[in-house]
Amino acid sequence: MAISDVKALTFDVFGTVVNWRDSIAREAKAILGPKGYDKDWHDFADRWRARYQPAMAKVRNGERPWTRLDDLHRENLLELLPEFGISGLSEAEIDHLNRAWHRLDPWPDTVEGLTRLKRKYVLATLSNGNVSLMVNMAKYGGLPWDAILGAEVARAYKPQPEAYDRTAQFLDLKPVQCMMVAAHNGDLLAARGRGFHTAFVSRPQEHGPNKTRDIRAEHDFDVVADSFIDLAAKLGC
Amino acid sequence: MAISDVKALTFDVFGTVVNWRDSIAREAKAILGPKGYDKDWHDFADRWRARYQPAMAKVRNGERPWTRLDDLHRENLLELLPEFGISGLSEAEIDHLNRAWHRLDPWPDTVEGLTRLKRKYVLATLSNGNVSLMVNMAKYGGLPWDAILGAEVARAYKPQPEAYDRTAQFLDLKPVQCMMVAAHNGDLLAARGRGFHTAFVSRPQEHGPNKTRDIRAEHDFDVVADSFIDLAAKLGC
Repeated sequence: MAISDVKALTFDVFGTVVNWRDSIAREAKAILGPKGYDKDWHDFADRWRARYQPAMAKVRNGERPWTRLDDLHRENLLELLPEFGISGLSEAEIDHLNRAWHRLDPWPDTVEGLTRLKRKYVLATLSNGNVSLMVNMAKYGGLPWDAILGAEVARAYKPQPEAYDRTAQFLDLKPVQCMMVAAHNGDLLAARGRGFHTAFVSRPQEHGPNKTRDIRAEHDFDVVADSFIDLAAKLGC
Repeated sequence: MAISDVKALTFDVFGTVVNWRDSIAREAKAILGPKGYDKDWHDFADRWRARYQPAMAKVRNGERPWTRLDDLHRENLLELLPEFGISGLSEAEIDHLNRAWHRLDPWPDTVEGLTRLKRKYVLATLSNGNVSLMVNMAKYGGLPWDAILGAEVARAYKPQPEAYDRTAQFLDLKPVQCMMVAAHNGDLLAARGRGFHTAFVSRPQEHGPNKTRDIRAEHDFDVVADSFIDLAAKLGC
């Protein structure tokens, strides 16, 4: 089928829709700075994020049962804090810091681009973030999703095939009627392997000055764009 | 906990948010009228809807495996058509008619009321309709949901307890932080039985002149309103 058959766009969120690195650094500084901690908060964000894939890997490979990303993030945070010499936080303070992932800023083009894309397409999250994380982030950032889908409702973390398959099934669409939108080559390759159309949106600032991968589209994806506004224009929205 | 602790409103949809009876009658007439059929299309709508609870009952009691409402609606339609002497429709025409349930009009106060409520609360569907049905209906009617939840993602049809329990879990809320909004006493009683707050919104025209039940709130629900605008006012939105 052709791109004209696409009915729904399914979105990676962390890095593609929102700027997690600067947002987490800002939140960590705002919460921990007043407690007297003066750290490299971007390094704090990077090292928290570095624990993301290893934590999900244990769920993917069956080493542990299904666990929501909020809970993985919290476990990772509890390991991270002593590495930075941070201690003495209350449970409520740890929860609030952990929910910094619910308060991530959209990239400057995100809301305008999504608003244009929504006129023509169903917009659904296909993130590894859990439902409440996605819902709260959407409220915070004004993200106009039509549906919150992805890992938690599919009970599978990307890039497992079930994450893509079940998202299309919930939308009652064939995979080719879906287009995965992501800033990460691996996510798009996995989606394409399940029959999805693919759109690469470059996010060169995702890792700040440290970005060494996903600088550009490394495969012949159906669309390559440098913002959601560019994506909307290329899809005729 | 008090009503001030409510974070999310979870909505029954058929009858509460949308006017299924007039919409199905309109769609059936528009599709079948030009084929020469001249029927009482409101009766057609009523009799299609009458098959709704018995069809779900077989899923609830384990007589058959999980089946989406779209598929139950279609089976019911195939039984209904011969009762009205209607035959010869193509598979595509049957599908289009079946998806009349995706094209239901909101009540006149629905969109304004939801828009006001959305400023203060997370708005989620807690309907027996499947995800794609709810997504398409929202696109059709401009319903500003934050999340499409309910039966399909919970894998349980209301009033089974799991439908309510799992919806609250997906939102990462305690049941008392959720308020079920419905025009049906039974739905609200079931939700209250799982710890939800409750709001009854009267929809006296749901069954046209034939409405004999759910005329009014029969229990002391937390809020009783006569429209979504009234509900917004009563919740301080």
